[in-house]
Amino acid sequence: MSPANSRPKTRPFHAARAVFPTGRDSPSDCLERYLGTIEELEPEVGAFVTLNLAGAREAAARSTARWRDMDPLSLIDGMPVGIKDIVETIDMPTEMGSPLYKGWRSERDAATVAALREAGAVIVGKTVTTEFAATHPAGTRNPWDTACTPGGSSSGSGAAVGSGMLAAALGTQVVGSIIRPASFCGCVGFKPSIGALNRGGSHDNLSQSCDGALASSLEDAWNFCWAIAQRAGGDPGYPGLAGPEVIPGAKLPRTLAVLETAGWRLASDEAKQNFTAAAARLKEAGVAIIDRRSDATVAEIETGLASAVPLTRRINAWESRWPINTYRERDASLLSKTMLERLAEAEAMTIDDYRRDINERARIRALFATLSGIADAAITLSATGAAPVGLQSTGDPVFAAPGSLLGVPAISLPVLEAEKLPLGLQLLGFEQQDAALFAIAVWARDVFAEEGR
Amino acid sequence: MSPANSRPKTRPFHAARAVFPTGRDSPSDCLERYLGTIEELEPEVGAFVTLNLAGAREAAARSTARWRDMDPLSLIDGMPVGIKDIVETIDMPTEMGSPLYKGWRSERDAATVAALREAGAVIVGKTVTTEFAATHPAGTRNPWDTACTPGGSSSGSGAAVGSGMLAAALGTQVVGSIIRPASFCGCVGFKPSIGALNRGGSHDNLSQSCDGALASSLEDAWNFCWAIAQRAGGDPGYPGLAGPEVIPGAKLPRTLAVLETAGWRLASDEAKQNFTAAAARLKEAGVAIIDRRSDATVAEIETGLASAVPLTRRINAWESRWPINTYRERDASLLSKTMLERLAEAEAMTIDDYRRDINERARIRALFATLSGIADAAITLSATGAAPVGLQSTGDPVFAAPGSLLGVPAISLPVLEAEKLPLGLQLLGFEQQDAALFAIAVWARDVFAEEGR
Repeated sequence: MSPANSRPKTRPFHAARAVFPTGRDSPSDCLERYLGTIEELEPEVGAFVTLNLAGAREAAARSTARWRDMDPLSLIDGMPVGIKDIVETIDMPTEMGSPLYKGWRSERDAATVAALREAGAVIVGKTVTTEFAATHPAGTRNPWDTACTPGGSSSGSGAAVGSGMLAAALGTQVVGSIIRPASFCGCVGFKPSIGALNRGGSHDNLSQSCDGALASSLEDAWNFCWAIAQRAGGDPGYPGLAGPEVIPGAKLPRTLAVLETAGWRLASDEAKQNFTAAAARLKEAGVAIIDRRSDATVAEIETGLASAVPLTRRINAWESRWPINTYRERDASLLSKTMLERLAEAEAMTIDDYRRDINERARIRALFATLSGIADAAITLSATGAAPVGLQSTGDPVFAAPGSLLGVPAISLPVLEAEKLPLGLQLLGFEQQDAALFAIAVWARDVFAEEGR
Repeated sequence: MSPANSRPKTRPFHAARAVFPTGRDSPSDCLERYLGTIEELEPEVGAFVTLNLAGAREAAARSTARWRDMDPLSLIDGMPVGIKDIVETIDMPTEMGSPLYKGWRSERDAATVAALREAGAVIVGKTVTTEFAATHPAGTRNPWDTACTPGGSSSGSGAAVGSGMLAAALGTQVVGSIIRPASFCGCVGFKPSIGALNRGGSHDNLSQSCDGALASSLEDAWNFCWAIAQRAGGDPGYPGLAGPEVIPGAKLPRTLAVLETAGWRLASDEAKQNFTAAAARLKEAGVAIIDRRSDATVAEIETGLASAVPLTRRINAWESRWPINTYRERDASLLSKTMLERLAEAEAMTIDDYRRDINERARIRALFATLSGIADAAITLSATGAAPVGLQSTGDPVFAAPGSLLGVPAISLPVLEAEKLPLGLQLLGFEQQDAALFAIAVWARDVFAEEGR
């Protein structure tokens, strides 16, 4: 159950920021509210590896001065944020959820972190990641029910944002590491188009790896990622997250495609019912819904995506051969069993196997791109149901794998429930069309907010 | 002048390896010959940052045992190699030519290094790089004339391989960092197709960055890179270097396109004369030669490539914003003036500027790809002339920039001269067609070898 015996609440920064110019609130006061929640919940949740409260307070004070002078650096100036501990920070260790990196300091900021500081964000601490942002969990609990996993691999980012300890946090996803914890912890999750945020200094090296945000609101997610992209760009060679500085307004889509994917048969009955009801609600709000039964293109895409999980796992295995092989050389006893198994799988593969896999992925990506001719976005679940009980697994990433495989933008909206715990509605867009997906997500959120009133 | 008052000579490993099965030579004996040359020349040349002679001798002894048992791990089992010091090694510091990384140990091997060890290569030491593999030199001298630069940024790799201290060495190129030192030091340089070798743990993060080889022979270059790709793959998401285990045999191309590029007006008269004579020699050997005057496609490509250097520099500047910004934050006094200028250039750019630049690059790449319909490869100079006198600059990369911008495989063949010093003939192929370019390079080498007899 929830540590405070009440439902955790996210604490959107964009709402507080709107008041800063009036002087009735300030980044320093705002920070203290988040720190109060950390003090209250962190002992039971364990979202952080390291906190830098003094550094955060100094940064908030500088931000407060800028707002007082009406000279903020960006829309996230003063935003209390966390950094997933797979990403380098100059002022805190980067431990990657691995004893191999216990206390390790890179003595530099990652590209995203440097950009956040440049934009005036207040970096509060490093959030817990599973071992090397893969599957082996590191003890963080779900703030909605501490008997449950918060999801992974961005476990601490999800738990901290979902419970109002932070406004937003950096996450990374290669299978389901942003969408799943966002779903389990009741916050917004945004995995951008492949390459949209510069991964320099982030130790997520795989071809599907993508940095993104767990955030208290769609506004906070967009502002957080946009501020990074403007200052750090995307991955070298990629155009980087594109769109306007201010989040696009709600846009009613003409058509949404429902994707069941391989997750459907694993989803709980309640999750499926609630998703189906949500799709019906969106239809009532004026959008046409197509699915595998009504549309041949959607059916073909469903067939392609059926192999998303095993295909992703094979691609990830080959691409993880390094650095896991050099870590095994250093001290195999400091790697988890699952990590050693992944390495064994990689070593049983050949480069030709890998080439076949990435060719198949390219085929499925091209197939999905044809959907843009008939639908504005796709919708599906973010997870098979509520966060499962137990901390030995971070849950099943099956619903997030398609967006990762496709390299398209994915947003988890915290508008569903299962077992009285949060469950995300996932929207999938088209590559480099992240802003268009946000416009639809804002519309969908407003539909459900309207319903809740 | 040459330290030993004689012309340096490369020492191909593939020739020695052929004898190992007979027992008349062994990796250990072979290593000692290279080490003898290191002892003789290194004090004047300064190709190495760190040597690990004990580790190399142990690795050679293990290789010797494998050859004795007729059970070698690969075609480079026992090959004495060096690692450019921008690439991580578990047994030696990685200093990146920067005082910021003095004595820094990553405690792991880069993907390429792990693969080389797995293939049985004998890692002798870390070779000198310019500051962060960019332009600020680090003192290595050219073994052909110690008053001259060896080129950069793979300065130590070029100098060591060109003088027989190593059979091959890892290099990296983003503008001209493999092709130019190979040209100046008289060895083979091979910059593969973009993404062909896994850059994990190599601190060359730019979108044109590519790991490759400086080698004593085409065979050594191919075997070295092929062995890496099989074990480490290419960059995540790329198919990796493709082709047969054994270097392709000589193949007479039908047509070669002469590219003058922006370098031509900067090249010395002697360099231009010798290149023109070489092209005539190849024509005599049976290939058709086309150029900007005889062919409209070549003319159009020349126009596109005219901006290769400024376009590359702008792309590199934006992509270098990080990590240089975080290093400046740490201690600006430990960065060179040129590096701080690059950062200032980056900070004056916007992400929109960068998008325009990479779109223009994509346009030129697509244009170059059309050449494959009418020519088997392109040829040009590797440098504007012989290595210039002085250690304050590593020379002009203008002739290597087109291959870097295009992301295509490039080979520098040490078959020309200028000012009685080495000068490379450069061959440019088509993306992912590295093996086909080697077949042409073998043919061209044989043409010039025939002439030399």
